[in-house]
Amino acid sequence: MAVFVYKFGGTSVGSVERIKMVAEKIKKARDRGDSIVVVVSAMSGETNRLTAMAQEIQQPPNDREMDVLLSTGEQVTMALLSMALHDLGCPACSYTGGQVKILTDSMHTKARIREIDDTSIRIDLDEGKVVVVAGFQGIDDKGNITTLGRGGSDTTAVALAAALKADECHIYTDVDGVYTTDPRVEPKARRLDKITFEEMLEMASLGSKVLQIRAVEFAGKYNVALRVLSSFKPGNGTLITYEESQMERALISGIAFNRDEAKLTITGVPDLPGVASKILCPVADKNIEVDMIIQNIAADSTTDFTFTVHRNDYQRSKEALEQVCRDLGAKEVTGDDRIVKVSIVGVGMRSHAGIASTMFRVLAEEGINIRMISTSEIKISVVVDEKYLELAVRALHLAFGLEKDEG
Amino acid sequence: MAVFVYKFGGTSVGSVERIKMVAEKIKKARDRGDSIVVVVSAMSGETNRLTAMAQEIQQPPNDREMDVLLSTGEQVTMALLSMALHDLGCPACSYTGGQVKILTDSMHTKARIREIDDTSIRIDLDEGKVVVVAGFQGIDDKGNITTLGRGGSDTTAVALAAALKADECHIYTDVDGVYTTDPRVEPKARRLDKITFEEMLEMASLGSKVLQIRAVEFAGKYNVALRVLSSFKPGNGTLITYEESQMERALISGIAFNRDEAKLTITGVPDLPGVASKILCPVADKNIEVDMIIQNIAADSTTDFTFTVHRNDYQRSKEALEQVCRDLGAKEVTGDDRIVKVSIVGVGMRSHAGIASTMFRVLAEEGINIRMISTSEIKISVVVDEKYLELAVRALHLAFGLEKDEG
Repeated sequence: MAVFVYKFGGTSVGSVERIKMVAEKIKKARDRGDSIVVVVSAMSGETNRLTAMAQEIQQPPNDREMDVLLSTGEQVTMALLSMALHDLGCPACSYTGGQVKILTDSMHTKARIREIDDTSIRIDLDEGKVVVVAGFQGIDDKGNITTLGRGGSDTTAVALAAALKADECHIYTDVDGVYTTDPRVEPKARRLDKITFEEMLEMASLGSKVLQIRAVEFAGKYNVALRVLSSFKPGNGTLITYEESQMERALISGIAFNRDEAKLTITGVPDLPGVASKILCPVADKNIEVDMIIQNIAADSTTDFTFTVHRNDYQRSKEALEQVCRDLGAKEVTGDDRIVKVSIVGVGMRSHAGIASTMFRVLAEEGINIRMISTSEIKISVVVDEKYLELAVRALHLAFGLEKDEG
Repeated sequence: MAVFVYKFGGTSVGSVERIKMVAEKIKKARDRGDSIVVVVSAMSGETNRLTAMAQEIQQPPNDREMDVLLSTGEQVTMALLSMALHDLGCPACSYTGGQVKILTDSMHTKARIREIDDTSIRIDLDEGKVVVVAGFQGIDDKGNITTLGRGGSDTTAVALAAALKADECHIYTDVDGVYTTDPRVEPKARRLDKITFEEMLEMASLGSKVLQIRAVEFAGKYNVALRVLSSFKPGNGTLITYEESQMERALISGIAFNRDEAKLTITGVPDLPGVASKILCPVADKNIEVDMIIQNIAADSTTDFTFTVHRNDYQRSKEALEQVCRDLGAKEVTGDDRIVKVSIVGVGMRSHAGIASTMFRVLAEEGINIRMISTSEIKISVVVDEKYLELAVRALHLAFGLEKDEG
């Protein structure tokens, strides 16, 4: 008897009709003899409705009470879905994060899971029941309600799958899998049957929003086989595992990109020890997240220092950097907030040389000037002018053979 | 340091603005140095919204899951009210029924409270916090969420007041106290400063909808001083206690009435042992609640049997009774669904003779024909034609001196 954890997001359970559809999908799986644990999010729109009321009352709302408030969203869904299952003659039982119980630390609004007591769930599964669990929420050791922050329901699903040693954890969403790149940019983008955790992590961190990074990390750590599927369309989706799949593996698995980048450069910085932290600390102090960082030594024993930030943080970063420039006696601060990052990702890079040079040649042939380069073991990112985004993605997609099978 | 339990119903917390008003009222009380525990209902409309979704999914909805669903209503209110208190600089902490914990039996949708663990509440009160508790809900010994049924939030408040040995339990509602009778029928109706538990129970069961009977019974059993007040108007409301108040106590405290009555009579029933149950069992089997019951022996060793039911149950009762009539060989079934019940209530009756005869004389003087009479130790009820309701209430209100003080 296989054990599966299914997770349905807010859109998938966004109305009474969709909840009924989800119940039918679950019942079919159970009728095949599988044991099913379902993790649900709040109905789409509900979290916004609750947050708006909280904002009207207190700014910012008290963390502990915000968790009490928002956790009702998933509780409503789990009760309605259980009713829908009962209505189909399928025995079901719902649990809040506190009832399961999903023990977390006490960091309200962004708690981390510490431990899961799956006793009740196992008893229910043995009795043939479908178990419905509220995603996104837990309870701390004092009994306070906590929530896991953005993408928390994915994390709940993966954590439950790990605790139950489930055969697979299915994340049902509004896309039918992970694609070689965004089909809105390259219509020939192809759904991947499989992808490795590391590739998925790179894809996610580079802007492919199918899964939350945290859930993928968690799944990788506990070796939970994750599958991304569509709630509404049939199909096998994309499996995320440690296995390195096919014999004739493609060199790269996908092309990720991020539109919302900006870059900042400070030139003529005296090249002394500790200069990097003197530049970056004032930026970090403003809670600005820095992405790529590049440092070059110039001829005259000064250095140029460049980094990228989210486009929304561009102005604030620039102001911080101009102060740094004066303090360090550097030459000047320049910047550009019309840039994007394009990355190729693939474990195939590890065993194949020449991938970087192929990438740079393809871009050069299209007349695209590379402004920055950054690499990791399974990823190469370049920063280019915003206007070249679509051209770069399509050219690389073709060059690395990622198109849909024409047959 | 006095300890108070305040309960606010759905209308009192029906919007963000009202929640803020309630928070200000609570803060003022706390600033006077009192310890405050607040019990809240779901925001008005919320229970209906949730119930409508459940009804669309399953008919009738699964009991256990209905409790999971509905209990979110109070959880939302308690979080928002706690935020509003924080916003006023008043430390506060919210608890669900499960967190308190309020242990109940496992009768979903109509659970009974067994025990309250008030440890956390006492610690919070000692730290100067206002404690906000979700009304209407509890948890059974297996950790399932339960709800207490109609008027459950009043019951939660009284139970908490009993557990905490609170000085008073305040029920804030949309009326400013208990009146001698309904002011819409008799504009001279006067708010009572005090009323005894027994009187309040009779008033409630006779149709005065200020408090739920169950909460009054509970308060009487555990000797919790209950006070009914308006959420929006200032004033001391009505205190409900065991004390028999003033020296010169009025003979009666109030006049209750019930518009939705119907009566049924079966005549010429052979007067044999067990005949009452043969008549009433078929009615009870249809889940019809019987109110007043009167039996008279006629001259010819047959008996006449009359009872009242809710007007909505009149037709179904009549059908059941016509079958009984045939089975028992009785004479005939008659009925009237245009009747009302008017009752005078007062502990003064115990020590004063002649109250019944005063009542009957007053009604006779107004030409009102009494169709049925029923008495208890502190109440006399009469059934009269519907058209006489207002006249009867006003005549009795005057005769027993219940008018507002003119001074």
